[in-house]
Amino acid sequence: MSKLWGGRFAAETDALVYRLNASIDFDARLYDEDITGSIAWAKGLAAAGVLTPDEEAAIISGLEAVRQEFAGGSFLLQVNDEDIHTAVERRLTELTGPIGGKLHTGRSRNDQVATDFRLWTMRAARDVNAWILDLQAALAASAADHLEQLMPGYTHLQHAQPIIWGHWVLSFFWPLTRDRERFSQARDRAAVLPLGSAALAGTAFPVDRRLLARELGFSAISHNSLDAVSDRDFAADFLYAAVMLGLHLSRLAEQLILFSSAEFGFVRIADAYSTGSSIMPQKKNPDTLELTRGKSGRLLGNLTGLLATLKGLPSTYDKDLQEDKEPLFDAYDTLAMVVPVMSGLLRTLELRPDRLAEQLEPGLLATEMADYLARKGVPFREAHGLVGQAVRMAEEEQRPLTSLSSAELKALSPHFEQDIAVVLRMETAVAQRDVPGGTAPAAVREQLAAARRYLDAHGYEDSAS
Amino acid sequence: MSKLWGGRFAAETDALVYRLNASIDFDARLYDEDITGSIAWAKGLAAAGVLTPDEEAAIISGLEAVRQEFAGGSFLLQVNDEDIHTAVERRLTELTGPIGGKLHTGRSRNDQVATDFRLWTMRAARDVNAWILDLQAALAASAADHLEQLMPGYTHLQHAQPIIWGHWVLSFFWPLTRDRERFSQARDRAAVLPLGSAALAGTAFPVDRRLLARELGFSAISHNSLDAVSDRDFAADFLYAAVMLGLHLSRLAEQLILFSSAEFGFVRIADAYSTGSSIMPQKKNPDTLELTRGKSGRLLGNLTGLLATLKGLPSTYDKDLQEDKEPLFDAYDTLAMVVPVMSGLLRTLELRPDRLAEQLEPGLLATEMADYLARKGVPFREAHGLVGQAVRMAEEEQRPLTSLSSAELKALSPHFEQDIAVVLRMETAVAQRDVPGGTAPAAVREQLAAARRYLDAHGYEDSAS
Amino acid sequence: MSKLWGGRFAAETDALVYRLNASIDFDARLYDEDITGSIAWAKGLAAAGVLTPDEEAAIISGLEAVRQEFAGGSFLLQVNDEDIHTAVERRLTELTGPIGGKLHTGRSRNDQVATDFRLWTMRAARDVNAWILDLQAALAASAADHLEQLMPGYTHLQHAQPIIWGHWVLSFFWPLTRDRERFSQARDRAAVLPLGSAALAGTAFPVDRRLLARELGFSAISHNSLDAVSDRDFAADFLYAAVMLGLHLSRLAEQLILFSSAEFGFVRIADAYSTGSSIMPQKKNPDTLELTRGKSGRLLGNLTGLLATLKGLPSTYDKDLQEDKEPLFDAYDTLAMVVPVMSGLLRTLELRPDRLAEQLEPGLLATEMADYLARKGVPFREAHGLVGQAVRMAEEEQRPLTSLSSAELKALSPHFEQDIAVVLRMETAVAQRDVPGGTAPAAVREQLAAARRYLDAHGYEDSAS
Amino acid sequence: MSKLWGGRFAAETDALVYRLNASIDFDARLYDEDITGSIAWAKGLAAAGVLTPDEEAAIISGLEAVRQEFAGGSFLLQVNDEDIHTAVERRLTELTGPIGGKLHTGRSRNDQVATDFRLWTMRAARDVNAWILDLQAALAASAADHLEQLMPGYTHLQHAQPIIWGHWVLSFFWPLTRDRERFSQARDRAAVLPLGSAALAGTAFPVDRRLLARELGFSAISHNSLDAVSDRDFAADFLYAAVMLGLHLSRLAEQLILFSSAEFGFVRIADAYSTGSSIMPQKKNPDTLELTRGKSGRLLGNLTGLLATLKGLPSTYDKDLQEDKEPLFDAYDTLAMVVPVMSGLLRTLELRPDRLAEQLEPGLLATEMADYLARKGVPFREAHGLVGQAVRMAEEEQRPLTSLSSAELKALSPHFEQDIAVVLRMETAVAQRDVPGGTAPAAVREQLAAARRYLDAHGYEDSAS
Repeated sequence: MSKLWGGRFAAETDALVYRLNASIDFDARLYDEDITGSIAWAKGLAAAGVLTPDEEAAIISGLEAVRQEFAGGSFLLQVNDEDIHTAVERRLTELTGPIGGKLHTGRSRNDQVATDFRLWTMRAARDVNAWILDLQAALAASAADHLEQLMPGYTHLQHAQPIIWGHWVLSFFWPLTRDRERFSQARDRAAVLPLGSAALAGTAFPVDRRLLARELGFSAISHNSLDAVSDRDFAADFLYAAVMLGLHLSRLAEQLILFSSAEFGFVRIADAYSTGSSIMPQKKNPDTLELTRGKSGRLLGNLTGLLATLKGLPSTYDKDLQEDKEPLFDAYDTLAMVVPVMSGLLRTLELRPDRLAEQLEPGLLATEMADYLARKGVPFREAHGLVGQAVRMAEEEQRPLTSLSSAELKALSPHFEQDIAVVLRMETAVAQRDVPGGTAPAAVREQLAAARRYLDAHGYEDSAS
Repeated sequence: MSKLWGGRFAAETDALVYRLNASIDFDARLYDEDITGSIAWAKGLAAAGVLTPDEEAAIISGLEAVRQEFAGGSFLLQVNDEDIHTAVERRLTELTGPIGGKLHTGRSRNDQVATDFRLWTMRAARDVNAWILDLQAALAASAADHLEQLMPGYTHLQHAQPIIWGHWVLSFFWPLTRDRERFSQARDRAAVLPLGSAALAGTAFPVDRRLLARELGFSAISHNSLDAVSDRDFAADFLYAAVMLGLHLSRLAEQLILFSSAEFGFVRIADAYSTGSSIMPQKKNPDTLELTRGKSGRLLGNLTGLLATLKGLPSTYDKDLQEDKEPLFDAYDTLAMVVPVMSGLLRTLELRPDRLAEQLEPGLLATEMADYLARKGVPFREAHGLVGQAVRMAEEEQRPLTSLSSAELKALSPHFEQDIAVVLRMETAVAQRDVPGGTAPAAVREQLAAARRYLDAHGYEDSAS
Repeated sequence: MSKLWGGRFAAETDALVYRLNASIDFDARLYDEDITGSIAWAKGLAAAGVLTPDEEAAIISGLEAVRQEFAGGSFLLQVNDEDIHTAVERRLTELTGPIGGKLHTGRSRNDQVATDFRLWTMRAARDVNAWILDLQAALAASAADHLEQLMPGYTHLQHAQPIIWGHWVLSFFWPLTRDRERFSQARDRAAVLPLGSAALAGTAFPVDRRLLARELGFSAISHNSLDAVSDRDFAADFLYAAVMLGLHLSRLAEQLILFSSAEFGFVRIADAYSTGSSIMPQKKNPDTLELTRGKSGRLLGNLTGLLATLKGLPSTYDKDLQEDKEPLFDAYDTLAMVVPVMSGLLRTLELRPDRLAEQLEPGLLATEMADYLARKGVPFREAHGLVGQAVRMAEEEQRPLTSLSSAELKALSPHFEQDIAVVLRMETAVAQRDVPGGTAPAAVREQLAAARRYLDAHGYEDSAS
Repeated sequence: MSKLWGGRFAAETDALVYRLNASIDFDARLYDEDITGSIAWAKGLAAAGVLTPDEEAAIISGLEAVRQEFAGGSFLLQVNDEDIHTAVERRLTELTGPIGGKLHTGRSRNDQVATDFRLWTMRAARDVNAWILDLQAALAASAADHLEQLMPGYTHLQHAQPIIWGHWVLSFFWPLTRDRERFSQARDRAAVLPLGSAALAGTAFPVDRRLLARELGFSAISHNSLDAVSDRDFAADFLYAAVMLGLHLSRLAEQLILFSSAEFGFVRIADAYSTGSSIMPQKKNPDTLELTRGKSGRLLGNLTGLLATLKGLPSTYDKDLQEDKEPLFDAYDTLAMVVPVMSGLLRTLELRPDRLAEQLEPGLLATEMADYLARKGVPFREAHGLVGQAVRMAEEEQRPLTSLSSAELKALSPHFEQDIAVVLRMETAVAQRDVPGGTAPAAVREQLAAARRYLDAHGYEDSAS
């Protein structure tokens, strides 16, 4: 290679190397956590006698000034501010003079960035849980509004048995309690203080780590400095919780997309949550639901990517770990859109009872018929077979199952009696399933009460009250 | 298409359709859970008055007989036994006659399989946690055996600062506590009883679900039957916990592979955990570690596969969910090999102190030198820069950093004094990091004590005592 | 740890270590490729003067005998047969005596297993492509059978514009051509001979590698022995091709599941491809389609797992690579079920023209109306807006869009004239889209002809002719 | 919920819905492709008689003016510019008046965005291939510079056999040829024109699609409009090619990280490609290599995310597809950094022959010894066993394998003769592996010549010449 070319290339590459290494583009959003962590560290150093009270005060007020600049949008990035830690310390030193350089005593970017990122994740998990809680309230409100509305229940996307809307809509409430649990557990695993671990071996200054933890809102301190600077379990936990939430939203979205099709027509999505077509003037598309469904794939990508990155790293701290933040930021920003949008969509969703009623066809009562026989003492397997014959008979004659007379049924089995006519009604079938968790209106009312207790217990405040 | 061909094809396809639908090849291992669940259900039906005491007794003794056949290897699969539930009920009916057909009253395969699979997962999570605990004991034993053995600490796979073996090996102990926590949480989420949800709408028979839950060892009952038959969160939780454990094992494996290379030479892996080469007679390969590292990819594949399958399913129960079991069985079987093998490998691992000592080069003390200056009041940023100059000076003259005389150092900074010679020793550097979680021997002893308390608290029994 | 316990453990672990290392459970299916490769190697050694003609003949006839034992099911595995290569050579040596031990001259398991696996992949890719071709023939047959059947076309699962069945069903034909291309390209990348690379550095015996390649059906020889023993790109390529095929099958399955729901009711799936319910006697579930959809997740898991395993391996050949085979075998076995089953399902699928007709509502013609105006010179943006007003007007008066009289329309825009009545028909709308690739019957006939040319060109033989 | 709260929420949600739907933040980078595609479409409409020559000219010059605004950075986004297509058309209409509204005649955003994105992907694939070619040139240059430099070859990260640097470094050349092939194939699959497919059914205006394809540089036109608007295979193909390239870079990075550790010390990375530590003044970290390794996980995340999103979409075009662009843009931007940085790092990499020589220990010659016996007619299995005994004997006596005298060896096997001393040299061992693809210097020279032919054939221009 010629020097000429090499020379030019070297210069270009330098810029690329810088860009590859720099993280300021995405970690600037950690400024608040970085400054909060640094203030706690300054106090810790002062308590340990490393900083004088004056130095401590100067550093803290300098850091607060930097925070104001960030918050007010007046912070000016310099060309060498490769990450948020460098940027903050650089500016601090400009403001305080050389004593700013004492802040980094006994600390490394390794424990510093882990502290910042954990603080951010702790807050992010709380935020997501608040959004979820609001979505749960929207589901509960929908259940309350249309509790006993009959509708077909599905398995395999085939008509199965009649259920009621309150039951259907609350079936999306409980998965969200598991999601909130996972985010809480991710938060708990984030709430272990790494600060004081320095680069890898622990700080050589007698800073009180337990005090630091309390100061910063952590529940515990890390047991091992090597683990502390490289542990990104909490980040994976957050992303995994996000994927699971994404899957639950995706399933709800999928079902509402179906329900809003011309063929189902069970619901109408409010205009505010639909969009039109650039070519077809009559279209009203459930874009928000489709994007919610699609973005669950993106969340899975974020998780898979981080896990693959974490696999098999060779030493305590490897720079590969810089890849940890962007997927979490992206997951958080994604959820910050799709969760509230789903809540709003549910709150403005219109049910179409006529279309639901259209689909309440007699076939939905076949199980009821078999249960009827079972109650008369026919072994269920046999009952199942007898009703299968009744279904076939009705199909062949192209009659509804419920039009079979008790005489016709009696011919199939002597256990069919007059009362079968009463039993074969949607309302009866639903009311019959009156165990905890069943679709009977009474059971669903209890379920709704439990859901409301959950909302109360987790601090949901209904602004209507 | 000609009939001739079509006819042949149809027949072939029928076999393929059967194979595609059938799950008996892999779900037969659920026979114990299936029978346990069915016995509880029979009791529930009897308590609800659906079965007479005689019928209950006949069904239960029939089921126990079927269990014996499975346990004893004498159960004969029939061609139509498409899944374990069908196989058990078929055999039960052969043994008891038609009353066997009453067992399925008010139950569906949907809630039955969910119950079986949750029981299996609850046990599997306990098993994995026991294996992990044994691995943690092996790590603690290694820490105890070689606690103060000096070694280089790494970041970026470059020499960073001296640490001690006890600290290094315990850095793999704490991630495993997080793994055990995740498996416990997966277990908790599995321990919610779906039985009584029937196909989707809840059972129409007044079975006491809370009693069923107690009988079967579940902690709670499901709130919503639609959610109960389709919820596979616990399966994903188990697989996610497995991936994280896999990542931790992979990192440990990676480091031991490095440490056993000719270049590092820090450890010798026992023959029982190594294998030879088919062509190179001198080779002793760390195959078990490589497979452990490689299998963490497989675990990630299991998780990703299930999550992609779960995304966007359109109705309460879809047959796609049949894909839930194989990845968990595979993850369990994988962990059943790699975790105990890692424990055994650690228990027989030989340290090579001479090779560790070779790598304890003076560069490892540079941070110590900067900390020295910081303790004398030099702002750390400035101290860092001064030591950087000392490092460069030593490098240029191809001398070890520790060979710089205090006079030479004093030329760089007046803060360097006589005592620097004492400070610049590996033992001093290590002892200096005496905060909780640091690498000082005293701190590591406390860490080891905490590790042992953890083992005790979780019921680890040292068979040596 | 006590010796007692240690002793017991050691024994147990030995068994686990063996199981962890052994691959015979899954690589036994490579017996044919292994023997074929070994025969070629024996010939190569003979041609290079390493084996005498007698030795060559003895080894080859021994290997053929071993092949017969495998093919006939009489091969007896021994406890130390840890992989297929060991098993075959062990048996060969039993049959031939010590000269069997000459076969491994200049060869390593590293290049041997790579050769076997590539041979298997080359054949597997051909098999999959044959299955796909048959599925494409089934799609083309369906297009031919119902070419002009009108149906609603969808975007966002909302009614968009009318199309015809031939167009819809052929939209699944072309993705399969891309799948076949990917499998062919995976095959091409597999068809590079690694044999002769020995463990890593190349064989030290003058075997003619180009001759070996020809003998075994490879297109080329590897350029670099280090790359040759570690390259698993072809395996990833195969899995990626499988995922893409899986996605295409999943989308087709998803749409057919919708189309066979009560609400759509567009198609009836033959009984042979449906299954019943254990509790609901009236159900006919599209299980095969659901499993096809679900298994696309599994295929994605196989790919992700292998890619994560391959990431960042540290040396030429690492044992992690043993994890390469199971995901391919699983993908192949999965496709061996789902592709032919989909072909059979399509060949027996029944269309329901009455249900399709029900959904051909006038809203589908809105674009046609806008295109009409555009043809009269109205800028499309303006035409789109005008038709939007017509749609709203019809909606508000709850009348079909087509019931608006030309006078009413003229009030909206003077460009609406008498001929609008002719234009606003499904048949006209469809016929209008007569560009290549459009839904006009004439265009679809051309498309079908192109599809048939593709089938012919790729050797599809219609058994009906 | 109270109206008050609802009202406030609705407003907030509207903003979120808008943000969720909008793609302008990331698709603005498609402005050039969008305008190029629109100009071709305007020409097509004019040729079809839909636009007059004056209208065509006005639209084209308007579009060129918009392009200038984007290129010059003067384009002003408006609040309703939700995507690049809307933004361009809005501005066009401002510039041209109502006739700008004629451009969208017979076109939909569905075929428009597919066209834009394919054009972008075609260019992106070419770009990546150029970067790869330059990296290959850097590898070839390194091979040429240090061709015969002896070094240990590894398997399982254990010393295996001696090889030469030229062979080692070229082992990373050939995987890149496969990567370039995959990018080319992704490009080929992108090069199929969707324009003319309109929303889903094909355009109703007689535009000549084949002419459009030629105009825009596509190789073919799509066969089916439904497939054309929903096919994202090319995007997945691009991401898959990116993952495989990422894996190859990750493996190279991993090995160079090892080689630059203190323990290996085989290479020195230039300062421009290393970074320091915030706490440890002596550190020189291979950050660029670690980030390259880490980012291969991110690339895998991009692929997995898109594949999960594509799985099982229910209708021709679903809004989920909007998630297709960001992962490709991210993959492209990632590769735009890591590939050239790796080239630069290789061009400035310093070898350390002394450290390589240190590791050339006699154990590396064991295979050579076995091959020696095999050449004398000893069956390889037996030879392997005999050398195993020699290795053990040397180990037990802590002597190098090469120090065993021919008498000692003769005691093991009469086939050992005087000439063994000549054979047991690194240079002999290497020279012996003189098959195509082997590590013999002669073979590697041929390999390098083949590599250079590849570079020439693909248009690499060495700027030095």
